[in-house]
Amino acid sequence: MAKAVVLLSGGLDSATTLAVAQSKGYECHALSVDYGQRHGSELVAAEILARSLGVCVHRVIKMDLSPFGGSALTDTFASIPVEGINAGIPVTYVPARNTIMLSLALAWAEVLGSNDIFIGVNVVDYSGYPDCRPEYIAAFGQMANLATKVAIEGARLSIHAPLMYLSKAQIIQQGIRLGLDYSLTVSCYRADDAGRACGICDSCRIRRAGFESAQVPDATRYQS
Amino acid sequence: MAKAVVLLSGGLDSATTLAVAQSKGYECHALSVDYGQRHGSELVAAEILARSLGVCVHRVIKMDLSPFGGSALTDTFASIPVEGINAGIPVTYVPARNTIMLSLALAWAEVLGSNDIFIGVNVVDYSGYPDCRPEYIAAFGQMANLATKVAIEGARLSIHAPLMYLSKAQIIQQGIRLGLDYSLTVSCYRADDAGRACGICDSCRIRRAGFESAQVPDATRYQS
Repeated sequence: MAKAVVLLSGGLDSATTLAVAQSKGYECHALSVDYGQRHGSELVAAEILARSLGVCVHRVIKMDLSPFGGSALTDTFASIPVEGINAGIPVTYVPARNTIMLSLALAWAEVLGSNDIFIGVNVVDYSGYPDCRPEYIAAFGQMANLATKVAIEGARLSIHAPLMYLSKAQIIQQGIRLGLDYSLTVSCYRADDAGRACGICDSCRIRRAGFESAQVPDATRYQS
Repeated sequence: MAKAVVLLSGGLDSATTLAVAQSKGYECHALSVDYGQRHGSELVAAEILARSLGVCVHRVIKMDLSPFGGSALTDTFASIPVEGINAGIPVTYVPARNTIMLSLALAWAEVLGSNDIFIGVNVVDYSGYPDCRPEYIAAFGQMANLATKVAIEGARLSIHAPLMYLSKAQIIQQGIRLGLDYSLTVSCYRADDAGRACGICDSCRIRRAGFESAQVPDATRYQS
């Protein structure tokens, strides 16, 4: 059974990605990063999801990016947008987040002898993030194949982004086909300690619209 | 004055790289990563060097990679090689270390609005590490230019590796020309709390040979 490292934030996209990786027959090693995000309930959701989906092992790497500042997700003073989705890069952008998380996944993959990394990035619904684009993922893969011992020894490392071209509705439909319980996932930037969503932040709006568009009941647990 | 982010481990190479970046007129932001390395005196050296060289600001990002295992530098049970330099990748290799550190530098550069990152990698004296090769640095640069907000907005981010093609002796000569005090740097994998070197590990051997070959007095503080 080939080993895969799967980045698992605890949100809808990464949970679906994990389900996809499992359905392809990989022995999944789930990786979460505690980077000082304010919505810590995401990490609780990641732990519950990892257990519920029966992954081989789940590891959390703790890393405090707050000395860098620069994002509403780690900066205590910036406010989370609740005004709807605007053009351009959202203020909730965390600098180099996917690069940092993929780098950590690469490190673990190398130790495990795994040649497959899964990440739930997607260009369709959230194109404001530069590090969610297919050309970025391809470039990371090229770099990764020069960075590691396995690559030097002849193996070929792949970065899988199975949700890349799916709409939020298609992602949800995919997850439901694979039996995923979306009530376990947390997407909200302002979720409470029990993982219940605010229902009004950008992330909640996109998620709710996804369930509507997928024409399936919204499994999200809301605060009210 | 253009801002640069300079990776500063506290060793000989990164200290020289910082001196080079300063000599090119950059306002230097030094970044160290506390990744659970056993030789913590490197980080003390980084702090002293940053202050001594008068950098704009020095930040340390703490990150525990030990859950991944896989290296003599973070694994408490593996022993540090003292048998001399062998062919192939050394056991002191930390998986994806440069990728992780460059990713953190990229995050900070983005927040600072800096387009220049300096790293003291070198192919000549220590070619066993895949992530020290010029093709790796080039690939990281290409990925970085797709990863970030600044890149999308049209800026061009550069990864500078000014020591890439220098021998250890040439690096030392360069640093001495720039007035660097190498007694402040720590290269030893088994340095004591005062930053004094063991003199027998691979890193000490390479460093000592560098001073000999450069025909300058070895500024290293040894344990005996």
